[in-house]
Amino acid sequence: MPVHMIDAIPVIKVRALECADTTDELAAEEPLEIRLEYGADFERTVKNISVTMRTPGNDAELAVGFLFTEGIIQSVNDVQFARHNFACAENRQNVMLVSLKNNVVPHLQSSDRNFYTTSSCGVCGKSSINSIRTVNQYTYSKDDNCISASMLYTFPEQLRAQQDLFEQTGGIHASALFSSDGELLLVREDVGRHNALDKLIGAALNESLLPLNDKVLLLSGRASFELVQKAAMAGINIIAAVGAPSTLAVQLAEEFNITLCGFLRGQRFNIYTSPQRIILT
Amino acid sequence: MPVHMIDAIPVIKVRALECADTTDELAAEEPLEIRLEYGADFERTVKNISVTMRTPGNDAELAVGFLFTEGIIQSVNDVQFARHNFACAENRQNVMLVSLKNNVVPHLQSSDRNFYTTSSCGVCGKSSINSIRTVNQYTYSKDDNCISASMLYTFPEQLRAQQDLFEQTGGIHASALFSSDGELLLVREDVGRHNALDKLIGAALNESLLPLNDKVLLLSGRASFELVQKAAMAGINIIAAVGAPSTLAVQLAEEFNITLCGFLRGQRFNIYTSPQRIILT
Repeated sequence: MPVHMIDAIPVIKVRALECADTTDELAAEEPLEIRLEYGADFERTVKNISVTMRTPGNDAELAVGFLFTEGIIQSVNDVQFARHNFACAENRQNVMLVSLKNNVVPHLQSSDRNFYTTSSCGVCGKSSINSIRTVNQYTYSKDDNCISASMLYTFPEQLRAQQDLFEQTGGIHASALFSSDGELLLVREDVGRHNALDKLIGAALNESLLPLNDKVLLLSGRASFELVQKAAMAGINIIAAVGAPSTLAVQLAEEFNITLCGFLRGQRFNIYTSPQRIILT
Repeated sequence: MPVHMIDAIPVIKVRALECADTTDELAAEEPLEIRLEYGADFERTVKNISVTMRTPGNDAELAVGFLFTEGIIQSVNDVQFARHNFACAENRQNVMLVSLKNNVVPHLQSSDRNFYTTSSCGVCGKSSINSIRTVNQYTYSKDDNCISASMLYTFPEQLRAQQDLFEQTGGIHASALFSSDGELLLVREDVGRHNALDKLIGAALNESLLPLNDKVLLLSGRASFELVQKAAMAGINIIAAVGAPSTLAVQLAEEFNITLCGFLRGQRFNIYTSPQRIILT
């Protein structure tokens, strides 16, 4: 079966005030659920261990490597097999079943410390997207927000001027909120990109700014599924990222009619979804 | 209380084959445990919701923003207060208690989908480091591994030549394993840096290469606590990162006597810990 590590995505490439329709190759991102089967011969247990957003490919290595680095198995000799879960019809490529040899006891107490928990198979991209839609309280049908390309080009420089920690350490992510007039309203920084965005949205909540459907979000790095998901929860409908988006980020942005731009550097960027909010004149 | 968003760390700066002792400012990284208090007046419940590795600062925003973007609360009006947990004597700065107003019901079913679980307060840096030490099966007392600076300088270029996905997408992380002779043995790529490393270690497990105490790990980006932790589990004792390390990554490397280098670019890099394995002649 072919593995989609890269997907070709339609994109509008903008240079200064010119644009062209083309395609772009993006790193694929999909959830992988890792399930562990263990126990004695006639009393096998299957436990959902973790869900991770990963690029498909080398999934057995990922599952076994994860179980090992988290201390749940002690050796590759503990493993009877690791394979995609064919019992899981719809998303077999996104569920890995790692089966331990008879009577090998996994060290699951370690896993209470820092794992994702999950209670169902429904973790493929589609299902995750569906599950967020049910809790999201804002709609994205209105197109009353827009930003000019000329304005967007000023954002990374405005952010950098405010980004104290990056200046000093070179190792930190930022999320910034701009008004559609191009004014920098809020910046938050963190070693974790999702934390920087949660801090930003937490600050916006404190200032009663939600929904943020008249603002623009700037991300200092890549745009992952989780960041688009968090942005969607706050009503954000224009996201510009200095780095690349993942395929699932683009898919989610499309479902929510969020304008997603990537590779915003100098006088250029790519528009992946909902281009109607970007003004090129 | 002052918040440590940045720590000054002693470092050896290497340029070509010269080195100098100095200090470097790194982004601080520490775990934050988010606890939620809710219920009716006399039946308040406290539940541990999540542990995230974050840069200290704006912790209340982070906690409230996280609860909101994950759909657990619907509005900032649900929140009575959010503050560091002073009942937790040792790590009060790393535990945030978010207390909901009376009778506000949190949407905790959402949280089963994708949260870290935790069962104790013991999540500060020190405690995490202690907890990994107990499961780690390799020791780091031997100094029988080393690598020359001249060899290290060739690693990023060797990796880039092999890094197919990055070439095409510009949005992916890599982990690479080198022999101490400078030969590139394995490369794995993923949108998640921790997945790239788990894949690499899974592949090394399949090839019976562990412990990896005669190899060198190259990370295409930053070195976080989790990556150093995973490397330690595989017996790796030399880590070189193209990006910056976090403070907790340095602390963990020091505890395990792992050589941690950062900012490996061109003919320069920084040595943060255990410099005896780096040869400068």
